[in-house]
Amino acid sequence: MTDSIQTVAGSPAPSRTRPLAEIPALAEMAARLLRTPSALAEMADDDARHVVSYMRLIQFAAGAPLFRAGDMSNTSYLLLVLSGEVKVEAADVGTGETMDIAVLGPGNVIGEMGLIDGEPRSANCTAVDTVQAAGLSRRALDVLIAERPAVAAKLMVALTKRLADRLRALGDQLVIYARLAHEARAETARLRGSPRG
Amino acid sequence: MTDSIQTVAGSPAPSRTRPLAEIPALAEMAARLLRTPSALAEMADDDARHVVSYMRLIQFAAGAPLFRAGDMSNTSYLLLVLSGEVKVEAADVGTGETMDIAVLGPGNVIGEMGLIDGEPRSANCTAVDTVQAAGLSRRALDVLIAERPAVAAKLMVALTKRLADRLRALGDQLVIYARLAHEARAETARLRGSPRG
Repeated sequence: MTDSIQTVAGSPAPSRTRPLAEIPALAEMAARLLRTPSALAEMADDDARHVVSYMRLIQFAAGAPLFRAGDMSNTSYLLLVLSGEVKVEAADVGTGETMDIAVLGPGNVIGEMGLIDGEPRSANCTAVDTVQAAGLSRRALDVLIAERPAVAAKLMVALTKRLADRLRALGDQLVIYARLAHEARAETARLRGSPRG
Repeated sequence: MTDSIQTVAGSPAPSRTRPLAEIPALAEMAARLLRTPSALAEMADDDARHVVSYMRLIQFAAGAPLFRAGDMSNTSYLLLVLSGEVKVEAADVGTGETMDIAVLGPGNVIGEMGLIDGEPRSANCTAVDTVQAAGLSRRALDVLIAERPAVAAKLMVALTKRLADRLRALGDQLVIYARLAHEARAETARLRGSPRG
């Protein structure tokens, strides 16, 4: 099975990728990390091991980009961080302005929207130090669906749960921003109406 | 198979629910609507029919609530609108303030986050006129995963795609709100600094 992760357009080629199953200790760690609360807590132990058997190891040097916001080709995969830390920045693709969002360590999943929709990446992700990650490509997911559909269904339920969590959090944030924007408009109107404040 | 949709706490009981499969013409329509772009366009025809065979018909009278923001029990199901229109409002559960978001007609899916995480509903949904909907409960999804895992996996991929779309749209909206809030703050500072504007 070839894997599109090997040729990430717009990013320096990762030093190498290989099936995680070739390194049993790392595969074991990946299966454990896949089930942490920051990743896909809902998965059963056996299911996680099956998923990991469809993943590839990818390494990034310190400072190397994992993704860039706006990356448009070969975006159809997610990464599970196995070791090292990844800085995530929101980026306004138009203006180039960035804003730090988070630093993610082992047991965090990155890029799950790309796995499903292959759309451009929505954030910059950069390796802070050497990063080892387990990659699952859309192609590998399709093989998993064909070969082990029940495991794939449970993986997808866990991924959907994760996206729902983010959607609810973002919805709450949006309500707060809408309120702030409303208050700022009211304050502006007040200041305009009574210049001496 | 019993179905939790029959007893939606906090809402008037829907007049009745029954397996969609008992009404072949409606089941056929549901399978078609499930594959419209507003619902789960990615699903194959056969897969959609299989999913529909696990759904129940639910009817709501004009003015009846489908969901209320904050509803906490029996939230684990989604609805596919078959006929009629549904008004969706964002609601601040604290203040009770609402804001119209959308009016959704046939071929729209509502409540898919609840299907997966069973968390409180995030919006008010009210029947504008008589609404027929096809409901898929978490219990039915679990049976689907057990009986037809490949279909379930594809359903979940389509649902995840849908959530990813919403997440990307909400992210874009948040960037706009953040910019507006920033500009409003700058305007307030300017007005404070030069009272005559």
